[in-house]
Amino acid sequence: MSYSKAEQFNLIQRGCDEILLESELKSRLEKTRALKVKAGFDPTAPDLHLGHVVLLEKMRQFQQLGHEVTFLIGDFTGRIGDPSGKSATRPPMTEAEISDNATTYREQVFKVLDPERTIVRFNSEWFGRHDAGMMIRLAAQHTVARMLERDDFRTRFNNQQPIAIHEFLYPLVQGYDSVALRADVELGGTDQKFNLLVGRELQKNYSQPPQIVITLPILEGLDGVKKMSKSLDNYIGINEPPNEVFGKIMSISDQLMWRYFELLSSRSVTDLESLKRDVANGANPRDTKFLLAEEMVARFHSRTAANAARRAFIARFQQGAIPEDIEDKTVETSADSVVLANLLKDTGLVSTTSDAHRLVKQGAVRIDGERISDSRQDIPIGVSHVIRVGKRRIARVAVRQTTG
Amino acid sequence: MSYSKAEQFNLIQRGCDEILLESELKSRLEKTRALKVKAGFDPTAPDLHLGHVVLLEKMRQFQQLGHEVTFLIGDFTGRIGDPSGKSATRPPMTEAEISDNATTYREQVFKVLDPERTIVRFNSEWFGRHDAGMMIRLAAQHTVARMLERDDFRTRFNNQQPIAIHEFLYPLVQGYDSVALRADVELGGTDQKFNLLVGRELQKNYSQPPQIVITLPILEGLDGVKKMSKSLDNYIGINEPPNEVFGKIMSISDQLMWRYFELLSSRSVTDLESLKRDVANGANPRDTKFLLAEEMVARFHSRTAANAARRAFIARFQQGAIPEDIEDKTVETSADSVVLANLLKDTGLVSTTSDAHRLVKQGAVRIDGERISDSRQDIPIGVSHVIRVGKRRIARVAVRQTTG
Repeated sequence: MSYSKAEQFNLIQRGCDEILLESELKSRLEKTRALKVKAGFDPTAPDLHLGHVVLLEKMRQFQQLGHEVTFLIGDFTGRIGDPSGKSATRPPMTEAEISDNATTYREQVFKVLDPERTIVRFNSEWFGRHDAGMMIRLAAQHTVARMLERDDFRTRFNNQQPIAIHEFLYPLVQGYDSVALRADVELGGTDQKFNLLVGRELQKNYSQPPQIVITLPILEGLDGVKKMSKSLDNYIGINEPPNEVFGKIMSISDQLMWRYFELLSSRSVTDLESLKRDVANGANPRDTKFLLAEEMVARFHSRTAANAARRAFIARFQQGAIPEDIEDKTVETSADSVVLANLLKDTGLVSTTSDAHRLVKQGAVRIDGERISDSRQDIPIGVSHVIRVGKRRIARVAVRQTTG
Repeated sequence: MSYSKAEQFNLIQRGCDEILLESELKSRLEKTRALKVKAGFDPTAPDLHLGHVVLLEKMRQFQQLGHEVTFLIGDFTGRIGDPSGKSATRPPMTEAEISDNATTYREQVFKVLDPERTIVRFNSEWFGRHDAGMMIRLAAQHTVARMLERDDFRTRFNNQQPIAIHEFLYPLVQGYDSVALRADVELGGTDQKFNLLVGRELQKNYSQPPQIVITLPILEGLDGVKKMSKSLDNYIGINEPPNEVFGKIMSISDQLMWRYFELLSSRSVTDLESLKRDVANGANPRDTKFLLAEEMVARFHSRTAANAARRAFIARFQQGAIPEDIEDKTVETSADSVVLANLLKDTGLVSTTSDAHRLVKQGAVRIDGERISDSRQDIPIGVSHVIRVGKRRIARVAVRQTTG
């Protein structure tokens, strides 16, 4: 390893929400051996997006520092599904489904992780060997009261919403994975903090040094407000085509761009500081955003694809170059989408919806550079779009769900 | 079966605390097949006493009615012990220990049950076959809130005493035993009611008709107040010698005698009513107590042993026949026992402890007919004793722990 302990610590802590405990991480880094770093993934959701990349990027950084990274697929509980039968979305998975999903996972995560340095494991390896008594022994290691300290459990308990008893077993299963792997470090989203801490405790019971828990922020979606998720349609999927990824990155606000740089980019801290200085000194933030968009496309596809996507993006806007200071507008709706004609009127890009219908018919309206022919089409909440009416009227419009 | 449905129902309900549901029991008795009756026993405590006989006697009655009775040994959880390590008294049991205990159990229970008609099962038969995932599926069938409705759990939870999560699994394990056995009826003490009802619910989830739950009262010990238990030393063990069993039965109060008749005797309800009438009409209750003592000795040993025990008991009291109206006295202590000399003074059998020492030295003091030579011996709390000083002073003395 060619990094000093201080350099390692600085890279590891970049963008993290919490490190428990920092002092333990520092002393564990003093060891000459590589640390065992674990992150668990749900076998039911193999469509990864940038929200997952926050975690993967942190795993990649550990690899860069020479540590041993395990990508753990929680197939044991996946094979069980939701045995309370309350969730139709969690039927038990077959071996074939899990294997297919694992393949899909591999294809995606190796766009970020180094395949040579990634250990892919399944927790059925150890849970499959255990009998029913093992689960009782595991359950004996935690109390009902402490489990009810987890935020979501406490809320449901206090609101008299049912908690099935097996839900208390899942954090123990996840925690036992750390015992089985003898993990030094476990990574997860901030919403995983409780479960990661259970792993720490179980390791103590099994006479192992407790793992260091590192939580990472939940990434905001393209709207810059809500958690990035497929269901909110504010995401960038790892498997999306280059032009999609590029265009979506270009649609985010300048503020969100810096957040994405910090959490997703492999650029060094020094590099990022220098970019920020440039913008502060008058460089066009759009050009900086190009760098982020290129890096993401290059990572998920290739450098060539990134260059092509950049050229395509510019070409789309060529005939009436996007002004440097494009105005941001927001339209709120209590529904999932807004009809284009209404959106044009609400943003002031046109005066009346009749104008909107007419101008669309004339081919004078473009969204993200594409000419639009249907003035009644629905514009969903989520992603921002650059909308142009004629030559002069232009705005970056975000459709948001009414809050409160 | 030579019993009418109504006769069956009357015998079954004799002495029961609750039958859930009576209507279901009645309609289940309409079936032409024998009912599957289950009672579970802890493999760690194979020393049975009359408290257990209440349950065994009810099982025997089902056998008498032609039903199929399973004596279930809960060895699966016995092999686990108390995995929280908090109870030193519940270390995991080995296969050899469980097998030894099962033998000891058999020797005792077949003094009440018909060995030809008793099925002895171990729940490791089915739990041993299951993997860790089965326990998760089982745990999914009950909620945390409902488990906290069990009295002891609720009390501990409200008092902020820890409840380990595996304790929530044990009622489910016991309940699943009913599923595995397809039980029609489960018997247990009133303290088992919650667990027996869990079995009912699980059977519904497994599309089985829910078992009828029959709870039996907890038998009072020889003091007539506290639960019979080994640790309180107020018990009659199934394996005690004939003279011990006989003498202990003779020491109980007349009121307790009727309770024991109802819960322990195989005499018919008609028989018992006739005995009560006799006593009401002036028969000596001591002679009725002889019948109970004889029945218990005959059951645990033999008819011959019962006759011998009766003769020995009478012989011990021969030289100064016990008055028919013997006075009951109680001595309270905050300790576990009282020194004999103090007891004699406290009950008024002697005036001073000096008198007590002197009279014991002279051989004038007898306990349960035996001459006593040590006036400083400890008389433990629990069993009552007939104490005689000289010819005329006599009392039945109970030593009790100070209450409150």
